[in-house]
Amino acid sequence: MNILIVHAHPEPQSFCTAMKDLAVATLEGAGHQVRVSDLYAMNWNPVATAADFRTRSNPDYLVYALEQRHAQAQGELAPDIAAELDKLLWADLVILNFPLFWCSVPAILKGWIDRVLVSGVCYGGLRFYDRGGLAGKRALLSFTLGGQDHMFADEAAVHGDWEPMLRPLQRGTLAYVGMSVLPPFAAYHVPYVSQEARADILRQYGDYLGRLDDLQPLRFPSLANFDRALRPLGQEVPA
Amino acid sequence: MNILIVHAHPEPQSFCTAMKDLAVATLEGAGHQVRVSDLYAMNWNPVATAADFRTRSNPDYLVYALEQRHAQAQGELAPDIAAELDKLLWADLVILNFPLFWCSVPAILKGWIDRVLVSGVCYGGLRFYDRGGLAGKRALLSFTLGGQDHMFADEAAVHGDWEPMLRPLQRGTLAYVGMSVLPPFAAYHVPYVSQEARADILRQYGDYLGRLDDLQPLRFPSLANFDRALRPLGQEVPA
Repeated sequence: MNILIVHAHPEPQSFCTAMKDLAVATLEGAGHQVRVSDLYAMNWNPVATAADFRTRSNPDYLVYALEQRHAQAQGELAPDIAAELDKLLWADLVILNFPLFWCSVPAILKGWIDRVLVSGVCYGGLRFYDRGGLAGKRALLSFTLGGQDHMFADEAAVHGDWEPMLRPLQRGTLAYVGMSVLPPFAAYHVPYVSQEARADILRQYGDYLGRLDDLQPLRFPSLANFDRALRPLGQEVPA
Repeated sequence: MNILIVHAHPEPQSFCTAMKDLAVATLEGAGHQVRVSDLYAMNWNPVATAADFRTRSNPDYLVYALEQRHAQAQGELAPDIAAELDKLLWADLVILNFPLFWCSVPAILKGWIDRVLVSGVCYGGLRFYDRGGLAGKRALLSFTLGGQDHMFADEAAVHGDWEPMLRPLQRGTLAYVGMSVLPPFAAYHVPYVSQEARADILRQYGDYLGRLDDLQPLRFPSLANFDRALRPLGQEVPA
């Protein structure tokens, strides 16, 4: 299996970085090919701008997704985007590895999503969810956070359930482009726990990575259940 | 009222920018003080790094939130962050105005959140939700998207309901720091509609901005209903 780990932590000695290193060792040890995009180390530019396209279909007015489609078709995407898109298309499994910032990814990783999930390749028109451009690939989130398990246990928990909190990432992004999304791995309470507890989390993460083929993907809508206007089938619209 | 609009669109002629301009005119016309942080125009740096702190409590290992707390207390935050934090603390109402990218904010705006919502000021320890550091302020999301209303109408819709999709922003960010969150304004289907339809959306947005005091804030948890370990009160933990 070809595996791309997109890693985004500003501290190279962080526990999150140790998770990335463990994933590389574990997955290579299991015979997989692993590539890492270490966004901080790469000084990745997360800001989507007109400079992302070496040629423009409309030089006077920027519609980012349309220019992605145009530039990709012409082979005129900015080189940093083209390189990441190549890695993404090479991968059978994509791991986003990050510290949870504001219940989401750090900006540098959001900008990898904004710039690399190129319209026309990863999605476009009615090509999303199970018809998405990256169908056949798998993806997962692995992240660290200060909070504890019980704070996200269910909708009665102080922050509610994980599913809605991670919905923009797991459904609105990874499933949207067609990837099969495996259950996330959350490393809880990391800034507050002992070295022993951290070692234990790493063991759990290693176990999780060894069981990827046994994990049941999360469930998301199938476009077969919606009409061409993307209304649920069977739902009548007044004439 | 003091109002801060944080605006993030890469195309100055965009409809989203017209919404920002309309908000400035409407709100100033109503007698409010309005300031705008136009992140693309400012060339805002969205990437949280060690360079954000002119002094460090631990120069050898970066824990971003701890260094925010330390640097803010010493008056040693990077000048771009300090300037935005001043605007945020000045504001009674904060409007995040953006195009929806991957069911969230563009990376440049995510990086405003990551860097400006400084620990120790905006939140910290048990100071969040209704005990958050920005309690007493209001906030709202105003955004453009390609999708249509019915695609987010309820949980049976193709993308589910807005509340979970916007949860990391509205609950995990704005409500987390204590702000009262007003219902969002979504400008649907923008890339596909006529100029007439766009003018109509702008009229609706103007109406919405004129009714801010009549809008019922969204509901989020009160920490009064949780114990000090942040478990729901009344929920017994086995000894």
